[in-house]
Amino acid sequence: MNNFVFQNPTKIIFGKGTVSQLFSEINARGVKRLLLTTGSGSVKTSGLYEKVCSQLTGIEVLELSGITPNPKMESIDIGVNICKKNKVDMILAVGGGSVIDGSKAIAAGAVIDENIWDIAERRIEEIVKAVPLACILTLPATGTEMNGNSVISKWDTREKLSLYGPAIYPVFSILDPELTFSIPKTHTTYGNIDIIIHALEQYFTHTPATPLLDRLTEGLVITMVENSIKVLDVPADYDTRANLMFCGTVANNHWIGVGKEHDWASHNIEHELSALYDVPHGAGLAVIYPNWMKYVMQKDPGKFAQFAERVWSVSRSGRKDIDVAQEGVVKMREFFKRIGAPVTLQDLEIDVNDIPHMAKQATRFGPIGGYCKLNTTDVERILEMCNIS
Amino acid sequence: MNNFVFQNPTKIIFGKGTVSQLFSEINARGVKRLLLTTGSGSVKTSGLYEKVCSQLTGIEVLELSGITPNPKMESIDIGVNICKKNKVDMILAVGGGSVIDGSKAIAAGAVIDENIWDIAERRIEEIVKAVPLACILTLPATGTEMNGNSVISKWDTREKLSLYGPAIYPVFSILDPELTFSIPKTHTTYGNIDIIIHALEQYFTHTPATPLLDRLTEGLVITMVENSIKVLDVPADYDTRANLMFCGTVANNHWIGVGKEHDWASHNIEHELSALYDVPHGAGLAVIYPNWMKYVMQKDPGKFAQFAERVWSVSRSGRKDIDVAQEGVVKMREFFKRIGAPVTLQDLEIDVNDIPHMAKQATRFGPIGGYCKLNTTDVERILEMCNIS
Repeated sequence: MNNFVFQNPTKIIFGKGTVSQLFSEINARGVKRLLLTTGSGSVKTSGLYEKVCSQLTGIEVLELSGITPNPKMESIDIGVNICKKNKVDMILAVGGGSVIDGSKAIAAGAVIDENIWDIAERRIEEIVKAVPLACILTLPATGTEMNGNSVISKWDTREKLSLYGPAIYPVFSILDPELTFSIPKTHTTYGNIDIIIHALEQYFTHTPATPLLDRLTEGLVITMVENSIKVLDVPADYDTRANLMFCGTVANNHWIGVGKEHDWASHNIEHELSALYDVPHGAGLAVIYPNWMKYVMQKDPGKFAQFAERVWSVSRSGRKDIDVAQEGVVKMREFFKRIGAPVTLQDLEIDVNDIPHMAKQATRFGPIGGYCKLNTTDVERILEMCNIS
Repeated sequence: MNNFVFQNPTKIIFGKGTVSQLFSEINARGVKRLLLTTGSGSVKTSGLYEKVCSQLTGIEVLELSGITPNPKMESIDIGVNICKKNKVDMILAVGGGSVIDGSKAIAAGAVIDENIWDIAERRIEEIVKAVPLACILTLPATGTEMNGNSVISKWDTREKLSLYGPAIYPVFSILDPELTFSIPKTHTTYGNIDIIIHALEQYFTHTPATPLLDRLTEGLVITMVENSIKVLDVPADYDTRANLMFCGTVANNHWIGVGKEHDWASHNIEHELSALYDVPHGAGLAVIYPNWMKYVMQKDPGKFAQFAERVWSVSRSGRKDIDVAQEGVVKMREFFKRIGAPVTLQDLEIDVNDIPHMAKQATRFGPIGGYCKLNTTDVERILEMCNIS
């Protein structure tokens, strides 16, 4: 186990009817003027928007709606301008990971003179000041509701970059599983895959002696597999949705990944798919991750065999690790198919001629991945494997 | 899963050589005058005391040493007086759970007019103000390094009570596994049992649909069992000690117990053993907990059978839950014996004639336990079972 520092100050307010606690949380922080950010659609049609507004009595509310999946700088720049002109005390993001990530970029951009994209491009600076941000999560997936990360996009140049820092942890996040009952099957599945892959990006590691972290992650993936299947049949079961939502937070609030090397190469590769084709992040990951596993497991298949045994119940008895590991990948892909995820680039309608460009972009800052350093050729090969069903 | 609120602001600084980060952490908080609290003995003989003092250059340091296991009001009152007279900016507790718990009571007592014991006795008030507290942990066990709990004792009346509140979460805790290499076998074992039972007090619950929390706890107990055995043979192995220390924090920082009913009756009962005989907390728990399990599992043995299967590899195939559950308890007691823990009241040199008094004291505020409400007679019966090897 490696040395680590962990601190996560976000207050999680979880459960049925918790939107009704919004007013007291905001009021306790003395908020007078607030920027309310939303996506495009369901928040207004579902009745949530009215519920939220009814909690904001006596507070001056400014609004920015229409933050899209893979949140774009166009929206972020508008939000930053609103904040700068109006000196808001808090940003309240109501939506999924994209609305929250876009709002984090607004929160950080609102207190600096330069454009937040320039900071993201420098890739070294932590965000240490920002307008306080709070969330009401409507789609469990990214874990952004309890971490200091944000992923933002530039549509004109087809680029996607990350921000990180202590100032963009939400001050509080309201998680009501009932708000997720109406998420369509496809997006439920994409969110669930995102959660599973977040956990695995922190699981496959060369850091020795992390037995507790291994078991926490394996437990999380098993829970996700069981509930990702259940939710397709009974989308409005409270406990199923609650467990999926809670897993989403646990998978990416940094706790299961402390003291070890992570990978995240598949996320880097997927960002190029999303940047070029605007595909849902979870859909891109479903295609890439099993192929990343197959590509990197050859050298040291032991951990992949452990994963196959403990999560997918593959027998190890008398078999080589590599065979066990490969059967694990087959079972994971079968599960992805079962829950309706794409498994090839064709399924995502991605032109294979774009592979060299995407590989080059994914590695433009140098080799990627913690478990295995991948150069441009490695990424090309993985993407070529993604072309095979 | 039940509704919950979770917030844990403690900064964990974990790993080899992390005591060297003490100065920058204290300095960043502008501390000018500090109360350094320690136990009696090993901190000074191990060289840690000098290491800590060398990090406190330029800071006025007051001292309180000799805080004992099951920290007593005598020490706490002295600490409170020092703080009140000298207006300290921070308390730095260097030691195990007792030093830290005692220091939490000092931190809370220092900012109020009445005695902190009176607040503990009222059992309803959260501690919302206190002198900021930081820790250097030397014995993993209670999890107090990352929670807002404290257990304190009054030796003259043989009483033990709890405090809880947001103000007594440590602002930071330094956890260096190397500091634990020299803990004697017996105290290593008691600490490890305490960690396991903390996890289980939150595991056995009637709250339905907590699959992730179940698996997190099972993974933690398996990791504890493996490493509690390893450490006896190789007490100075870094990874073993690191995993035990990390498990101690995970077991009781509230994260694995959110959204569900807990039990804690065994802790209540054990507090009476410690209050009357000053036995180590982990030693008392090793005797009580398996008997609590046997006593309460009859009505609803399913969860106990799950525990037996997943943690102790007891086969469930074709067997009744109650039989599987009972075999799990047998295996747990065998493990306790193997790592040198006491298993009966005789092993603790406790007079069985004190059972009625201890049972009465444990239930003096009413029935105890979340999983199963135990009255005085129930507790007497459990303690009588503790008399059988």
